[in-house]
This record gives sequence, C-alpha cells and structure tokens, in this order.
Amino acid sequence: MNSKRLGEVGEFKIIEKIREKFLKGSGVEVGIGDDTAVLKVSNSKLLVTVDMLVEGVHFLPSISPADLGWKSLAVSLSDISAMGGKPLFSLLSLSLPSHLPEKWLDDFLAGWRELAELFGVSLVGGDLTKGERIIVDSIVLGEAEKPVLRSGARVGDRIYLTGSIGDSSAGLHCLERGLDYPNLIRKHLRPMPRVKEGIRIGESGKVHSMIDISDGLVGDLAHICEESGVGAVIYSDKLPLSADLLTFCREQALSAKEFALFGGEDYELLLTAEADLAEFFEFPLYEIGEIREGGGIFLHDNGEEKPIERRGFDHFR
Amino acid sequence: MNSKRLGEVGEFKIIEKIREKFLKGSGVEVGIGDDTAVLKVSNSKLLVTVDMLVEGVHFLPSISPADLGWKSLAVSLSDISAMGGKPLFSLLSLSLPSHLPEKWLDDFLAGWRELAELFGVSLVGGDLTKGERIIVDSIVLGEAEKPVLRSGARVGDRIYLTGSIGDSSAGLHCLERGLDYPNLIRKHLRPMPRVKEGIRIGESGKVHSMIDISDGLVGDLAHICEESGVGAVIYSDKLPLSADLLTFCREQALSAKEFALFGGEDYELLLTAEADLAEFFEFPLYEIGEIREGGGIFLHDNGEEKPIERRGFDHFR
Repeated sequence: MNSKRLGEVGEFKIIEKIREKFLKGSGVEVGIGDDTAVLKVSNSKLLVTVDMLVEGVHFLPSISPADLGWKSLAVSLSDISAMGGKPLFSLLSLSLPSHLPEKWLDDFLAGWRELAELFGVSLVGGDLTKGERIIVDSIVLGEAEKPVLRSGARVGDRIYLTGSIGDSSAGLHCLERGLDYPNLIRKHLRPMPRVKEGIRIGESGKVHSMIDISDGLVGDLAHICEESGVGAVIYSDKLPLSADLLTFCREQALSAKEFALFGGEDYELLLTAEADLAEFFEFPLYEIGEIREGGGIFLHDNGEEKPIERRGFDHFR
Repeated sequence: MNSKRLGEVGEFKIIEKIREKFLKGSGVEVGIGDDTAVLKVSNSKLLVTVDMLVEGVHFLPSISPADLGWKSLAVSLSDISAMGGKPLFSLLSLSLPSHLPEKWLDDFLAGWRELAELFGVSLVGGDLTKGERIIVDSIVLGEAEKPVLRSGARVGDRIYLTGSIGDSSAGLHCLERGLDYPNLIRKHLRPMPRVKEGIRIGESGKVHSMIDISDGLVGDLAHICEESGVGAVIYSDKLPLSADLLTFCREQALSAKEFALFGGEDYELLLTAEADLAEFFEFPLYEIGEIREGGGIFLHDNGEEKPIERRGFDHFR
C-alpha cells in the first residue's frame, strides 16, 4: 500500500482534504470547517436522524470501505424516507484506527458520495477521531410538510411493502459462510433506500403510517402496531420474495419466509393505508396484510392463522 | 450493584425508558420513538454540530457517568455558542458495553439533563448500540440570525476571551497524577459552555469572528487566523489566569502560561472585534491581543515578541 496511514496525515489535514472534496450544496451557507454547519431551511418541518454503525456489531471487519460508506448513508436516508421526507444534509462522525491507510478513508468517502449524489445530499460537517474500532455515526437532516408517523395505522388499513424482503439477511448469511450469491450479497452491502418513493408517499397524504425494514418485517410491523395501538395479520403467500432469494433457499434448503419475516436491513418501506393505494403510485406496492383490532401480529399460512413471536434484532442481546 | 446490566434490559426497553423520562420540549413535534425526530424550525438559519467522545481518547475510563453526560453535551453546546447561536435540540448516539449496569446509563442521562435543563435543550432522538468501548456522539441543533464565523477577523481587531483558560488542562493533569485540586478538576469534568454569552454576542452583531477554546488558545486562534487570512499577537501578561491555576502551578512548579496557551477544553469563547467591545456587554471580556497582517501567531512576553509554534491536540497523532 503506497498510501500514508491516517495517524501520519493528522486530523486537520484529513478534514482539510474532505472539505476540498465536498463542495457546498444548495442551502448550505457554511459547510465543513467552522464550529457548526449553517443551513438555510424552509418553513416546513425538519427531520433529523442518526445511526451508529460499529465494527463487529453492524458490519464485518472485512467489509470494503466503499460499501461501508454507502451503507452508513443508506440507513439514515431510509429513516428520512420512512417519514415521507426529502433528505437534504448529512454529517459524519468517524472513529478510526490511526493505522488505517489514508486510502481507506478516500474509498469510504467515495462510496458515501456515490449514494449521496443520487439524491443531492450534501456533507455539511462531522467529527473525526481515533479509536480502536471503526465506528461510523451518520446524521441526516431532511424535511417533510406532513411527516408519516408510526402511530397512524387504523383498523382496516392494508399493509404494503415497496419491494421484496429477506434478500439482505440472506446476503449476510452468504457472507458469513462464504457462499457465492452475489445479488443477495450486494443487497446486503449496498442497500438502496426508497428515497423517491418516500418523497412521493409523503406528498400524497394517502399513507396513514410508515416505517422502514431495518429490524425485520415482524419487528418493524410490531413497532407500528405498538405505536398505533392495533394488531396485524400478514398473509404468508403474499410476501414479495425475489427470484434470487427463492433460488438460494431452494439450493441451501433454507426457508425463504424465515428470511422475509425476521431478516433485517432490506430498507424497503412498510406502510399502511386504504385498500386502493397501489393504483395511486407509479412504483409497485405489494399488499401483504391488514391492520386489525387488538394487539399482536398473526401469520396466515396454509389456511391457518398463528401469532408470530417477535424476533427482531436487539443490539444489546 | 443492584441494577441490571444493559445487556439484560435490551435495546428497546432502554429506549422506552429514555422516552418516558425525556418529555418533548417546545418545537418538538415528534421526539424519541419514530424513524426520525420532527422539529418545527423558524425561518432563521439552522446550526448543526456533532462531537464524538471515545473512551481512552477523550476521557479516562474512570470518569463518572454523570460527568461524562454533562461533558458530552457541554462540548456541543459550546460549538453552537461559538457561532453566536441559541441551542435548541439534541440527539445522542451511544455505543455501550452490554456489561454496564443500567444505573450507569441512568447517571449518564442525569448528568446530561442537568446541563440541558439550564438552557432548555430537548433530547429529540439518537441511537443506542452495544460496543466494546463507551462512545458518545453528541449532536446539537441551534439557530442564529447572523452566525459569527471563524473567517471574519479583520486587521486591527482586538482579541477577547470570555474567561480564564488553562484550568481544564491543569485539571486533567491533576486527574492523571492523582493531585487534589478539586476546582481545576471540576473545570475539566464539568465545563460550563458560554451559552448565554454566545447568544448575546450573536444578537449584538458587533463581533467579527469567534471560536471556542477546545484545542487550546494557540490552536484555536490559529483556526481563526487561517480562515480569516490574518495573523495575531497575544500579550502574555494579559492572559486571564485563575487564582486556582496560579496556586496549582506555584505549588507544582509548573508554568501557568503553558496551560493557558496550549491546554484545551476550557470552552471559553475567543472572539475578535473592535477596541471598545468590553463596554458593550454585561459579562466580562478579557482583551488578550490583536489581529494583524500576515500569518502566524506571536507572543509578546517580557518586552520580546516571538512566534509561537502551534501545539494543539491532534486526535490522530
């Protein structure tokens, strides 16, 4: 490796380089390089989210820096989309081992930027410090006139997904076991947040509640049910499963439904609304179930209905 | 210890508890518990800052959780103050070992809250994950009509400080060596950001440039000089030194000026403006030097003037 280590370059030089690379976007009065960022915001409501990714907990040490850069922004963009909002600005807090080559950080930022440029998100600040483990804290600010909350689900609402689920956790399974299913692995490493769909949903005013699939379908639907004081039923045969997931599960003798129900990090949007919603948008929506009275989540499978135990990922267990 | 470990309590229960404790402040439409916070902001300019504190790098593992909670908010409030802004909202990203007792987090939040309540800052969101080391990422949002930047210093400006410097680094010196100077140690563990002073300075429109003392006087003044394209001279005999620092340095045969020039984390405000500024405010301002043409920082000491080498703390060295 020709590149210097971060410890040889030094904090201020690194920040100076980042500042030169990331020009100020629209609405950014002061970006990197002062005590705070200064942002011009309109009168609508401001959305703010933060997601911390820790080496060994959220990602394998072997992840490529470009994939990590992409993913760390994707998870936060997805939160903004889950409110029906438009992402605008981002800040990045990084704790990095000083022995990392400078090229590592260049590649990380290149991956981050590749996604940011798709949606016009500006890097406006952050923090940089040394630490034994790689830790990325991704902050994204956005706006929405009418944010779509978790708490708005109504009895009788249909439950929709913006795309197939289970692929990301199957991809992680492959990475951990050295299995070669590149499409699934890519879904895990480079999830595509539903930014445009989120904006359209927010503008439409037709969606009662929404969340993104980060903990897994059952875990995330449980958040909606708890916040809304309702229950839900999912139809097992309506779950959108990709051809890649079905092939992988057939070949590996695994259950695609298990990945779809409990696997996290697909970053599809899960929403509830009236029955005719799918006709309203130009992008596909998959109807997978219904909101009902009472608590709990039930799975309708082979003519039978059973309660599902929540098995979402808990970061402290 | 009677309290459960964080790993036994679990992520969602912990967040639920935090949500119950921290009620929504004014301007907070949605706080903890949805995909993002939803904040109502006025038309003025939004300020955003983030500061990451890493165990073993920014604080000793022996720090009390309440002191850490206080300090992690203090550093970010200070950044808002250094822009002449008013802090409004905060988010906290925490990586914590799962063996920590639940009481640790309660105490951390109590220390955080003690400072937040002084200035009406609301906790509106965050993230919580396990990790080997304690890592706190503190995000604060604020507002300012006319932010005071680092880049506005003009030749002929006087340089002012809002209070004495060197105490915090002397306090750290005491902590590391087991020396008993409680006032200095307290300055290090519980720094008081100059929030009210920052707001007044911002409103006044009379200050040309500003920064807070986090890296040390020389390092932070160098940031102002670089951003403004100017140089500076500091008068050694005008540095505001506390009685505590002078006593400590006399008893320990150390140089108070060294702590004042190069010691960081005092979180006093360093500002430049015209000569009559001190008369304008109801709080004290200490004039310590002058902005001049050319680059570099000079120290006027015992009738002699010498360039000072910058020795601020670099987090990667």
